[in-house]
Amino acid sequence: MASILRCSPKLRTVARVPAARALSTTARLQAAEKPFFPNEPAAPSLKTAIPGPKNKAAAAELDEVFDVRSLNMLTDYQQSIGNYIADLDGNKLLDVYAQIASIPVGYNNPHLKQVAQSDEMITSLINRPALGNFPSADWSQILRTGILKAAPKGLNQVFTAMAGSDANETAYKAAFMYYRQLQRGGPNVEFTEEELLSTMNNQGPGSPQLSILSFKSAFHGRLFGSLSTTRSKAIHKLDIPAFDWPQATFPTLKYPLEEHVQENAAEEKRCLEEVERLIKEYHNPVAAVMVEPIQSEGGDNHASPAFFQGLRDITKRTNVLFIVDEVQTGKAQTAGYYFGNPALRPNKPYRQFNTWMGDPSRALIFRGIIEEVERLGLVENTRVTGDYLYAGLDRLAQKYPAHFQNLRGKGQGTFIAWDTPKRDEFLAKAKTVGINIGGSGAQAIRLRPMLVFQQHHADILLESIEKIIKLL
Amino acid sequence: MASILRCSPKLRTVARVPAARALSTTARLQAAEKPFFPNEPAAPSLKTAIPGPKNKAAAAELDEVFDVRSLNMLTDYQQSIGNYIADLDGNKLLDVYAQIASIPVGYNNPHLKQVAQSDEMITSLINRPALGNFPSADWSQILRTGILKAAPKGLNQVFTAMAGSDANETAYKAAFMYYRQLQRGGPNVEFTEEELLSTMNNQGPGSPQLSILSFKSAFHGRLFGSLSTTRSKAIHKLDIPAFDWPQATFPTLKYPLEEHVQENAAEEKRCLEEVERLIKEYHNPVAAVMVEPIQSEGGDNHASPAFFQGLRDITKRTNVLFIVDEVQTGKAQTAGYYFGNPALRPNKPYRQFNTWMGDPSRALIFRGIIEEVERLGLVENTRVTGDYLYAGLDRLAQKYPAHFQNLRGKGQGTFIAWDTPKRDEFLAKAKTVGINIGGSGAQAIRLRPMLVFQQHHADILLESIEKIIKLL
Repeated sequence: MASILRCSPKLRTVARVPAARALSTTARLQAAEKPFFPNEPAAPSLKTAIPGPKNKAAAAELDEVFDVRSLNMLTDYQQSIGNYIADLDGNKLLDVYAQIASIPVGYNNPHLKQVAQSDEMITSLINRPALGNFPSADWSQILRTGILKAAPKGLNQVFTAMAGSDANETAYKAAFMYYRQLQRGGPNVEFTEEELLSTMNNQGPGSPQLSILSFKSAFHGRLFGSLSTTRSKAIHKLDIPAFDWPQATFPTLKYPLEEHVQENAAEEKRCLEEVERLIKEYHNPVAAVMVEPIQSEGGDNHASPAFFQGLRDITKRTNVLFIVDEVQTGKAQTAGYYFGNPALRPNKPYRQFNTWMGDPSRALIFRGIIEEVERLGLVENTRVTGDYLYAGLDRLAQKYPAHFQNLRGKGQGTFIAWDTPKRDEFLAKAKTVGINIGGSGAQAIRLRPMLVFQQHHADILLESIEKIIKLL
Repeated sequence: MASILRCSPKLRTVARVPAARALSTTARLQAAEKPFFPNEPAAPSLKTAIPGPKNKAAAAELDEVFDVRSLNMLTDYQQSIGNYIADLDGNKLLDVYAQIASIPVGYNNPHLKQVAQSDEMITSLINRPALGNFPSADWSQILRTGILKAAPKGLNQVFTAMAGSDANETAYKAAFMYYRQLQRGGPNVEFTEEELLSTMNNQGPGSPQLSILSFKSAFHGRLFGSLSTTRSKAIHKLDIPAFDWPQATFPTLKYPLEEHVQENAAEEKRCLEEVERLIKEYHNPVAAVMVEPIQSEGGDNHASPAFFQGLRDITKRTNVLFIVDEVQTGKAQTAGYYFGNPALRPNKPYRQFNTWMGDPSRALIFRGIIEEVERLGLVENTRVTGDYLYAGLDRLAQKYPAHFQNLRGKGQGTFIAWDTPKRDEFLAKAKTVGINIGGSGAQAIRLRPMLVFQQHHADILLESIEKIIKLL
């Protein structure tokens, strides 16, 4: 039974990952002591105010041709290393935002550099294939030794894409085709003449008014289908036509979790009931439920394993697909794809197709990242460092309760967040103490260090957070 | 006044390109005589039937994890060179399909190889930036010396994307935001509370029921917004929800053009009137008209310059945007983007934004392609070779009238097509004489050679087409 899809431009290695690797003593020691990047700076260093004069001049030049109003800082990638991001003015900041949680194994990682210089990389860059028609002879091996190593059990099919948004949308398309196939009575039932004609006019029954159910505060991308399931901020959606698709409430948990067990369970139950009701009653029938393991853009909202199991049970009962968007929790492999099982292949070729269908050069980088995660024991490193970091933040939260609400992400590696009343001021001040850090939703600070973030980085971060608080 | 957008993952260098470079005598000679790739095979060579035994075995292995029902041939890119594509069994075919018209300067182009080995390429591959927040310090220079060299006059803003579909969709989003801004009374009018709230529910007025007008047989991509404007084949659209957007008739011209001047003008006038009527009357107001210079997937359908000027006049009169999808006519730069002018920047930041916003490594390849097009005089080469090829096809059409209807693309470089009754059989037989060639729409053969296709390749192609016809 085809019922779970996983979408990600990245690999789930941190959050809610079943223990993928055995505990490694080496990794523990490494996490505590030996730096992964021996030539990283010992600490952030600031040469100018940020943005400095060179940064300002370059931004003005770029602005003539490219919208820079969202600019954080113009980056000198050659000078960036490991966990440190460098700008044009020689400032080096500890980076716990990591390109909006999209790169995992450190700036200028030496192993990735080898991958980038390999013959297969050069070939893939200069002979870009139309993967559905003319895949390279080694495409199967690239997938098997790379992306598919991150595939959950039973999901042995991969549909490669370019980024998170289109990976999500191809999964939605798979869900719609699967839903209609069930309605029709199987893969061998031919399309009717009416379907064939009506779809050319964007009308039913060929273009049916089906829907994807997503959650309030969800973020799944900004193309037309994915944006119709994104519910994080109005500014993402204003003026763009959207499909009439339903949204359910994502649980709002109270923290600390151990003090609110009953209330939180009741909240999750209420949300699950709403999901089931919407699936049964929404006027545009629901083909799939789409959910993030942690709502990563809309405020770092967590729910319990029981909630996700409940969702899975509902989708099984109601016979709709369950899609997990691991774009941000997965922590970044610089490629897009979804996993499925053979039943999710459409009944005919060319139904799920496009010219490029992804990019082999990004699949090669993906493989290099997996190799690095395994070689350095980075899942275990992130678990150990995350626990250490969380404990430090918990101490700060006790000391500065006015600046820390709803500290969350315990046991989730370094995927940690908290709410704070002066959030935007906090983010701006962070640069003055050499920290590059991001927000989530309206009031959360989100930590998204790379997987090579170690205890000595956590120490710097904790000290810096205290400094920032004192500046507020 | 912001009123034209151009979308392309590629560069318009062939079809309907205003003479971008002065005629070059060198290029003329080169086109006639000196091969761009001295070590290309002299002719196609076949070692086995296609698919051969190695190809079949590898396809079976790939099929376990990746849908291969659309497979044309598993490709040995290391052995492919210039205009010749190699498969696993040692077969080398003259390639006039070029990865669905998506690569332009030959397999294993030595200049692109240098680009792929450059330090900036390596940096961009291993330190993938979130371009809206953390562009590299040299991003402005990469754009100015690369993608922007292909920008039409007055369109000095670029929004980078990943491929054609998402480039088109970001242009649609720009059009919707622009349309609503005009309605609102300018960029400084704030959103209303009702807009902010309703858009979170995917409802108007925040998520308005506006539309993009496209043409019958158009192809603009396969994500949800782009697919709503794609009207080429039912198999692309079946079971996928679509927006209620209007379609106008694209002219059906009669060939040879010079014998049907009056009828064709009347046909184009009829289509233009339909466009204007739909813009004025369609129940979901039209924010933009989307059109391909040549309908490249839906049958290689051409229209006259007067038709396009007429469209432009209508969009000016009715104050809607005019978007030109040059994804396939542009001939392939392996990146996605749209061009606009400053008025098309949304009134606030983060309205047109995503994590990656394109890929600098692909922008570097784009620049390498532009350099190669200039260095080798490939626009001129393609014009000269195209005229030569068209004349040869015209001779074949006279000789074999039953196999050639509506030969089209005269004066359009090598972007040539014709209709033929046994089209699919023709495509299959082509491989047996060493030619890799594609179809368009239901009955057309489409030629999409690369820009390095020369007269000696045209000679081989013409001979081969005659051989294929004799096999039918």
